Amino acid sequence: MKIGVLGTGMVGATIATKLITLGHKVMMGSRNEGGEKAVAWAQANGANASQGSFAQAARFGEILFNCTQGTASIEVLQAAGADNLKGKILIDVANPLDFSRGAPPALSVCNTDSLGEQIQRTFPEAKVVKTLNTVNCEVMVNPSLVPGDHDIFICGNDADAKARVVEILKQQFGWRSVTDLGDISAARATEQMMPIWMRLYGVLGTPHFNFRVVGASGRSSK
Amino acid sequence: MKIGVLGTGMVGATIATKLITLGHKVMMGSRNEGGEKAVAWAQANGANASQGSFAQAARFGEILFNCTQGTASIEVLQAAGADNLKGKILIDVANPLDFSRGAPPALSVCNTDSLGEQIQRTFPEAKVVKTLNTVNCEVMVNPSLVPGDHDIFICGNDADAKARVVEILKQQFGWRSVTDLGDISAARATEQMMPIWMRLYGVLGTPHFNFRVVGASGRSSK
Repeated sequence: MKIGVLGTGMVGATIATKLITLGHKVMMGSRNEGGEKAVAWAQANGANASQGSFAQAARFGEILFNCTQGTASIEVLQAAGADNLKGKILIDVANPLDFSRGAPPALSVCNTDSLGEQIQRTFPEAKVVKTLNTVNCEVMVNPSLVPGDHDIFICGNDADAKARVVEILKQQFGWRSVTDLGDISAARATEQMMPIWMRLYGVLGTPHFNFRVVGASGRSSK
Repeated sequence: MKIGVLGTGMVGATIATKLITLGHKVMMGSRNEGGEKAVAWAQANGANASQGSFAQAARFGEILFNCTQGTASIEVLQAAGADNLKGKILIDVANPLDFSRGAPPALSVCNTDSLGEQIQRTFPEAKVVKTLNTVNCEVMVNPSLVPGDHDIFICGNDADAKARVVEILKQQFGWRSVTDLGDISAARATEQMMPIWMRLYGVLGTPHFNFRVVGASGRSSK
């Protein structure tokens, strides 16, 4: 499959590289075609790896990943162009973390709105599916870094798009338990897990952890 | 021990009743002495159970539980009186859920502040310990309702107070895994777990669930 990955940071590189190892053709998008990080990534990842502007990567992909910093995501997606997002599944793994006032970062949007909803509202013809934003990027593409059962959440307004993404999460990334929280407004819930995630990162000293939802049935939620 | 429980709702009644079964002397506090719910609770719970105003219950208790609705907590604690909170451990299990605009409720404070911090700021001589606010009240006092290992979080500025509360959580309420997240500002993290809690409540159809933090070590965080 042809996949566009928007963002050249750790998250973008980790997801893009995983998709290459799975046999997909991946274009990494950055602010300008020929950006240093994207070029280095493409050169290191063989014939199926390429790079371009956000718009080129968005045009290239049948499915898109938003791996940009949450506070920049809307601007990046505008640069990518609504026409290039139209009708496509846009997997939003970003969190609206505002580092401008130091650590720990606050959320730039939360409570009665979320980044996932902002993206869906701004690009109504994209099929925004929010997922993976509650774990470290290495765990995103390799859930077995955290042993045993643990959960990943998914939400979005388009049932078919979610079903497709669940398939990617399970069959390609290796997630065993994917819990559908409902429409895109559930992005409020998962984005607001960032504060507990950051506290636990401090306590545990490793980003390789996750939550298991333990219910009365005695196992994960799904 | 003499314990004051502020609040007559489900949370207050559940905690107060548990404390009675553990052999403590408990005064349930409500807006006015002789309030209907508090009187009914006291009558049903034997000689160790009593009721009074918020101020009476706060004066009575060596340790206090804030089980009021989060949006009313500051006002209730002001009625209880700063002098009656002074030097005491105040276990804050409330969440600042604002139901005024319907369901799902938003948080009335979050992100760069929290109810736990507001209480600590307003009553600097109380030893505020935030805990138990991430689970249903029945799970609070009976963690085995959710099978297997799962975690409860604790935070606060006073190390001795936290150690005392950990003891209560483990030896009296039966919690096996209590994770210290640091100072009271970590209340932002646990209070912001309400949105994911409410979504999961909808998905699972039972309030008897909890999170297990699974780390690279393969077990709960503590």
